[in-house]
Amino acid sequence: MPNYSFDAGLLNPLSHGTRESELTSDQAWLQAMVDAELALTRALVDAELAPKWMLAVCDVLADADQFDLGAIAAEARNGGNPVIPFVKHLGRAAEKVRAGASDHIHVGATSQDILDTAAMIVAHRVTCELIHQLDSLGGTLADLADEHRGTVMSGRTLGQQASPTSFGFVAAGWLDAVLLIVTRLDGMRDTLPVQLGGAVGNLAVITEIARTRRSDAVTADVLDSVLERFAHHTGLVVPRLSWHTNRVVISELASVLAAATGVAGTIALDVSVLSRTEIAELSERLAPGQGGSSAMPHKRNPVSAVLITAAALQTPGLASTLYGSMLAEDQRPSGAWHAEWQSLRVLERLTISAVTGAASLAARLDVDPDRMRANLDLTDGLVFSERVTTILAGAVGKTTAFALVERASQEAFVTNRPLQVVLASILIAEGCTDALRAQIWAAFSYEGEPGQSTAGIDRVVRSFRQRAAVSDRDGIVEAGPLSNDVRIA
Amino acid sequence: MPNYSFDAGLLNPLSHGTRESELTSDQAWLQAMVDAELALTRALVDAELAPKWMLAVCDVLADADQFDLGAIAAEARNGGNPVIPFVKHLGRAAEKVRAGASDHIHVGATSQDILDTAAMIVAHRVTCELIHQLDSLGGTLADLADEHRGTVMSGRTLGQQASPTSFGFVAAGWLDAVLLIVTRLDGMRDTLPVQLGGAVGNLAVITEIARTRRSDAVTADVLDSVLERFAHHTGLVVPRLSWHTNRVVISELASVLAAATGVAGTIALDVSVLSRTEIAELSERLAPGQGGSSAMPHKRNPVSAVLITAAALQTPGLASTLYGSMLAEDQRPSGAWHAEWQSLRVLERLTISAVTGAASLAARLDVDPDRMRANLDLTDGLVFSERVTTILAGAVGKTTAFALVERASQEAFVTNRPLQVVLASILIAEGCTDALRAQIWAAFSYEGEPGQSTAGIDRVVRSFRQRAAVSDRDGIVEAGPLSNDVRIA
Amino acid sequence: MPNYSFDAGLLNPLSHGTRESELTSDQAWLQAMVDAELALTRALVDAELAPKWMLAVCDVLADADQFDLGAIAAEARNGGNPVIPFVKHLGRAAEKVRAGASDHIHVGATSQDILDTAAMIVAHRVTCELIHQLDSLGGTLADLADEHRGTVMSGRTLGQQASPTSFGFVAAGWLDAVLLIVTRLDGMRDTLPVQLGGAVGNLAVITEIARTRRSDAVTADVLDSVLERFAHHTGLVVPRLSWHTNRVVISELASVLAAATGVAGTIALDVSVLSRTEIAELSERLAPGQGGSSAMPHKRNPVSAVLITAAALQTPGLASTLYGSMLAEDQRPSGAWHAEWQSLRVLERLTISAVTGAASLAARLDVDPDRMRANLDLTDGLVFSERVTTILAGAVGKTTAFALVERASQEAFVTNRPLQVVLASILIAEGCTDALRAQIWAAFSYEGEPGQSTAGIDRVVRSFRQRAAVSDRDGIVEAGPLSNDVRIA
Amino acid sequence: MPNYSFDAGLLNPLSHGTRESELTSDQAWLQAMVDAELALTRALVDAELAPKWMLAVCDVLADADQFDLGAIAAEARNGGNPVIPFVKHLGRAAEKVRAGASDHIHVGATSQDILDTAAMIVAHRVTCELIHQLDSLGGTLADLADEHRGTVMSGRTLGQQASPTSFGFVAAGWLDAVLLIVTRLDGMRDTLPVQLGGAVGNLAVITEIARTRRSDAVTADVLDSVLERFAHHTGLVVPRLSWHTNRVVISELASVLAAATGVAGTIALDVSVLSRTEIAELSERLAPGQGGSSAMPHKRNPVSAVLITAAALQTPGLASTLYGSMLAEDQRPSGAWHAEWQSLRVLERLTISAVTGAASLAARLDVDPDRMRANLDLTDGLVFSERVTTILAGAVGKTTAFALVERASQEAFVTNRPLQVVLASILIAEGCTDALRAQIWAAFSYEGEPGQSTAGIDRVVRSFRQRAAVSDRDGIVEAGPLSNDVRIA
Repeated sequence: MPNYSFDAGLLNPLSHGTRESELTSDQAWLQAMVDAELALTRALVDAELAPKWMLAVCDVLADADQFDLGAIAAEARNGGNPVIPFVKHLGRAAEKVRAGASDHIHVGATSQDILDTAAMIVAHRVTCELIHQLDSLGGTLADLADEHRGTVMSGRTLGQQASPTSFGFVAAGWLDAVLLIVTRLDGMRDTLPVQLGGAVGNLAVITEIARTRRSDAVTADVLDSVLERFAHHTGLVVPRLSWHTNRVVISELASVLAAATGVAGTIALDVSVLSRTEIAELSERLAPGQGGSSAMPHKRNPVSAVLITAAALQTPGLASTLYGSMLAEDQRPSGAWHAEWQSLRVLERLTISAVTGAASLAARLDVDPDRMRANLDLTDGLVFSERVTTILAGAVGKTTAFALVERASQEAFVTNRPLQVVLASILIAEGCTDALRAQIWAAFSYEGEPGQSTAGIDRVVRSFRQRAAVSDRDGIVEAGPLSNDVRIA
Repeated sequence: MPNYSFDAGLLNPLSHGTRESELTSDQAWLQAMVDAELALTRALVDAELAPKWMLAVCDVLADADQFDLGAIAAEARNGGNPVIPFVKHLGRAAEKVRAGASDHIHVGATSQDILDTAAMIVAHRVTCELIHQLDSLGGTLADLADEHRGTVMSGRTLGQQASPTSFGFVAAGWLDAVLLIVTRLDGMRDTLPVQLGGAVGNLAVITEIARTRRSDAVTADVLDSVLERFAHHTGLVVPRLSWHTNRVVISELASVLAAATGVAGTIALDVSVLSRTEIAELSERLAPGQGGSSAMPHKRNPVSAVLITAAALQTPGLASTLYGSMLAEDQRPSGAWHAEWQSLRVLERLTISAVTGAASLAARLDVDPDRMRANLDLTDGLVFSERVTTILAGAVGKTTAFALVERASQEAFVTNRPLQVVLASILIAEGCTDALRAQIWAAFSYEGEPGQSTAGIDRVVRSFRQRAAVSDRDGIVEAGPLSNDVRIA
Repeated sequence: MPNYSFDAGLLNPLSHGTRESELTSDQAWLQAMVDAELALTRALVDAELAPKWMLAVCDVLADADQFDLGAIAAEARNGGNPVIPFVKHLGRAAEKVRAGASDHIHVGATSQDILDTAAMIVAHRVTCELIHQLDSLGGTLADLADEHRGTVMSGRTLGQQASPTSFGFVAAGWLDAVLLIVTRLDGMRDTLPVQLGGAVGNLAVITEIARTRRSDAVTADVLDSVLERFAHHTGLVVPRLSWHTNRVVISELASVLAAATGVAGTIALDVSVLSRTEIAELSERLAPGQGGSSAMPHKRNPVSAVLITAAALQTPGLASTLYGSMLAEDQRPSGAWHAEWQSLRVLERLTISAVTGAASLAARLDVDPDRMRANLDLTDGLVFSERVTTILAGAVGKTTAFALVERASQEAFVTNRPLQVVLASILIAEGCTDALRAQIWAAFSYEGEPGQSTAGIDRVVRSFRQRAAVSDRDGIVEAGPLSNDVRIA
Repeated sequence: MPNYSFDAGLLNPLSHGTRESELTSDQAWLQAMVDAELALTRALVDAELAPKWMLAVCDVLADADQFDLGAIAAEARNGGNPVIPFVKHLGRAAEKVRAGASDHIHVGATSQDILDTAAMIVAHRVTCELIHQLDSLGGTLADLADEHRGTVMSGRTLGQQASPTSFGFVAAGWLDAVLLIVTRLDGMRDTLPVQLGGAVGNLAVITEIARTRRSDAVTADVLDSVLERFAHHTGLVVPRLSWHTNRVVISELASVLAAATGVAGTIALDVSVLSRTEIAELSERLAPGQGGSSAMPHKRNPVSAVLITAAALQTPGLASTLYGSMLAEDQRPSGAWHAEWQSLRVLERLTISAVTGAASLAARLDVDPDRMRANLDLTDGLVFSERVTTILAGAVGKTTAFALVERASQEAFVTNRPLQVVLASILIAEGCTDALRAQIWAAFSYEGEPGQSTAGIDRVVRSFRQRAAVSDRDGIVEAGPLSNDVRIA
């Protein structure tokens, strides 16, 4: 194998320390192809369409490391996909275990059956890992939301300070998005289908075999049994029909992966912004040697946040490729399917990187409440404009109040005086009551929660923790080591 | 209004005869903005935070046609979004109905609350229309699947004839995808959320108002009531939290729209391919004047199929833009949100075009069973290679059988002789039994169903019809005319 | 015409005040289609393949307003493109002018010839307008670069203050990108080709006509003449071959449009960032009523910057659609071409919006040199770390110097002391010479230009102004009013 | 290094047999980073800013294989890019060669300077390889165009047979696209710029050094010299300004790569279509063992065509990511730059795969003129409708002629009679002259070239061959082995 084809992650620094390589490398795909083929053979044994001794053969063949990945990859060009050479390698290995064994491998399947099923096995593992990381991320965010419900900071819109909020509320907003995504991933993980249709999707070969070898049984029942056992051995579910050119499942997978990266990315982007030198409300806790620059000795860059954002910038284009591949003509298409493989794999990798990175980032987040408070003071009270308008509106109506505070704000801005002071003068000139002026003067205060923050935080944190409790109780399987036992649940 | 800004659909011929303009035009968006604002005011009345007489004002303001769309659009540039001028126009109109009425409009809301809620109202209507069209498309496909379960045709993979299938099975495959999408759209329609958070998402203003004006009640209860009534008046649901920068809901909407177009597109692409002059198994039934060419008098082009495919080629890029907009920083972002509006609208338009077009195309599909059968004969029996290999495998094992039929196929191809004949000679030479040779000779037949087609067709058609029955029973509201009553269910 | 199909720009606020509607509306496309058809007829007259009296007919038909745009758009569905009905409408109008005139219209052309040529005419006008706007933008940036070459500000990398730079240098960087794009647009504008190939691209019909009606001439010469005159009448150039399925030209157009928006977008993004409340080095000069919020009376949002950024977020997806359409099969494809029309139009619109918006934004940019200077002081000298490392390296070597300054920076950061002071102490402890310490102490100064800013600024500004001078001298035609004379230069 | 991170090309079968791994692997990138750093050091020596003995050190360090790629990749996470650890590894290696050598490495550069320059070095090599492959592809296409100028086949539009053309003309159309792209690549290759700006782009450090160490010279001249020598040692050119956030060059590179893949893809798509069982005009010449299926022994799939198409389906999404990365804020951005690396690399890989694959495919194309002719006969003369309309138009006018032939075509289609016969009857009924009827009867002939095919073919082939001649004469360097001498020309 040439030295040059080795990719160590040089151009995706975020990948180190994640399970992306383990779960999505060529080796992992080859293992999933082995798993898919052997699951089919075992299903045929279960349905009495293959001899029982094949189970022992399957056991011997189960570890993908025994196959020559490089040779299979090189031969894939001839047939247009890696399954064609793989079946030959697998068949030869089977024959070595027991003569005639190759006759019971890849029976009734077409290449796409195996590669699609392998893709779903990989997706299942990836999904489990993402759920695991998102649970971790969510846990940290729930704690941050709890802890910082009283940490006042400036809400910002279009880059400008707007009105006060709390960092706990911001964290709860992040958590809400995480919760939406992890819930969708739960559903996705439990509905990933096997693919089995044969050359043109109608299971013609297995039907033929079932008719002749299981004349004792209703053919349709035998086929249902094969499908059910195939799904059982792979940890996947039985679809309504083979889906060689019905790629809704791929599009949904793409959508949830891209959305998960988007959620991680928006958290990271917020961290980047709030870490800016001039804002400095958040920072990534860095170990010695992290966050440095090759040119400037003083730099402490928010490196994880930046790399997560970079991952999120790459996923939409990949998702669009997978949506494009829905245009799959005939019974199996001339390119659309082939365009999915790498795009899906890279999308999975970036998603694992981003989500794992976000879990790490959240756990290393330094929050600076003093700076948050100091930044709020920068506008000399302008951030209270919405609140005082609301109070004033009770007396003079919303329209008048808005115009009045707008005028005061402009005067405050131009004259560099606090809004509190400017507004007080104006209200006197307008003949405002003492009581109202006192109420408005008092409104320039960070005391009390901003709006309904507490209720919102509670609602999101509670929902997340309920989910976590259910997950623990139901023993949802984490993506563990790729041993044969755990892997396909 | 300048003459030049009028777009009549010149560059999207598929749009005519669909409801896309009605549902997604600027006028439709403006109506949805009116609906959102008035729903908020009504909710405040319901929660006793605005006077009861505002209901009558709302009734007067309900029709968007009274507002100057052109002026609002032109003024949108100043504030960066159309809500800012719209609120001014609405307030002025309210004042004309009753002095002081403008004080009870847009209370507690930020621009994004209104535009996001309007987007969800539009999406609700669009979703209803898509479900309606997909139900129609599915009904036609179910009938085609039923009718053509015995219509044998060539299954094709990578553009090459592969093995026999039936047109009914192909139609069932299309239907399966339609069913997946319509099911997702059902769920989407029922979970589209209102947006209400105020400037920085924490409902600060309404909280302030509730505290002072409803001192009789628990503030949190009042807020819950406002949200619940807001959702009620818009036909949407209450989200866990405001979602100004948590755009998972937009990404899911984008994903299901793009997937729906993809499903329509893959059907259209199949029709295009099967309509080719040299294949001619399907054709679009064209009225006089349709399908012609400006250069060639004889042309009968599959125009709907082509235009649906074109729509499906445009949606992945738009979906990617919407995924990109998940990267929304701060409490409301500097561009990401603004990039959603048009992308979502164009995506909705293309989806309506594609899905409506596909429903029409399916209903106008001419199937030519004779041509399907004739095309199968083109390969002189090669399409039976998988079947005879399977039979032969029962006797000599799969590996040997495959090699033997491969050799026969090549000889048949090179010598232009039928595979049936070539294979018979080879089997004699190989010393095959008479019984086996007879069985294999007989296998070159189109009798009987290909594989488990019937069971597969039944399963999909049954699932679709069960859904349709439930839909009818539950009286799921179709997207009807945009009258105030029906519109928001 | 139904009320609902009118789009006023509600969802693209940036479009107002630009020429996008005028240049790219359906009306503008219809005019370009008229221009293309009549240019062909005139070319046939020039080549003596059509009677001279057709020139007068063409004059009568030249204004697109006489055609029923709505009807043409509605009928486009039947044939799959708008040219088919348009040719009928045009033919009927021609017959009214003079019987037999329709025989000389659309001769030898296929629909795609006309629509592609119309697309290039539109693109030519759009390109001229973009060059005009970019020239304006560039002029402003050149002035800013000149004026602010001594305005020191913090260079920022990964959101962190890094080293000093000048605002003039930043503006020169923007200008450099503008200059690259405008240069590419110059080339693009001058090479946009006509499309003329007939049904399958080989000009069969015109060849047939030339053979019979111009037996006096070499047929190939007659054809060359038709093409040359067609190009002349449209203001476009003659391509090497018809390009019905060779879409390199469309991909290049897409790429330069997307890049132009990207350049405008990166300027806008910088303005957004530098306008943040906590940074406040730049601001958009807003007229009264601009930049406000519907919720917060005090807001002064950088609205143009935000909307330009939003445009730039939408263009990559559209460009990807146009790249996807390169996959055009046969002599004219089944969807890929049809997918281009709207995508190209929307891409052109967004580019006009973004570039025109950027020209306006640059002209309204308020620069705050005091704030720039004040922000630099925020780090207590850390921004000089690169410079002092360099000086120190002259004495102790770069590696040692880097480590030393890194240590000092960390100490300064942790102890909240100026780097200048901390470093001085360390250098004493390290036994540094007085001269070196003095030199390093003096290096903490904003005097002098940062690096080679001046030379860089000069190089870019000079290049831009040289181009502008050449443009003026050569009288490059601006995109003027759409009168027949100016339009196609 | 973990076993799992090894990717052998399993999911990109087309990559084998190409130079993509060699040119774009992590190892190749690391080599380019070495080349960039050492070119900078050599440039400093040339400008007398570093000692002459560093040249010998550079020679020792030149081979990237001596560096621990895996460790560098793993450490990249800490700083957010691979240059930061690489500089440390390089510095340590330099110190081993000669104490103090590390002081003269990475002087004045920031990480992005090195990685961008490395990206350009990689791009230069990739561009050379693409030009080489496109020259090969073009040569084959030129020969096909020449050889098959008289091979009549059906032109097809919207999937329907339209009018006759020749395969030579089709090949010339492909060649024209190849020629456009190769010409753009020539320009691209010769203008790829070095990146050198230091921390914030203004070359502050090198300026400082030049001022102190070359007080004999004008500082600006010294800097120009450094840049010129840096460009010389890398084989790149000097840009007008550093381009850390001006990514026009990346967008142009992306555009030409995506366009090159699009050109290869459209050729492949045509081959796929024309290889369909029912059309069978072209086929990929396959070696034994190629093009097979895992399920059907008879299959001969157009595997290269399919895989090239798949590559072309993946590139638009990647290009869109790179366009998105133009939105780069500050002096160096927080994610946009980082999102480029992998996207660019994968885009380069797919382009090499597609273009190399297309060169191979063209060289293995079997053309079946008999089948082309037989397919033309399928329509019983309808493909002559355009030609006979043209002839008839000479007598009765185009409009009448079109209507007449349209009627005849429909009658022929419905009655299954040849258009020639049907039209003859109609013309008699219409009282047509004998001479005209004879002329029209004779027009149903494949004799003579279709339209101006010959002239078109000649024009394109001549242009291509002239380019090839110039390339040979000017000795344009092919991308050779990665030895130090050849690599950077």
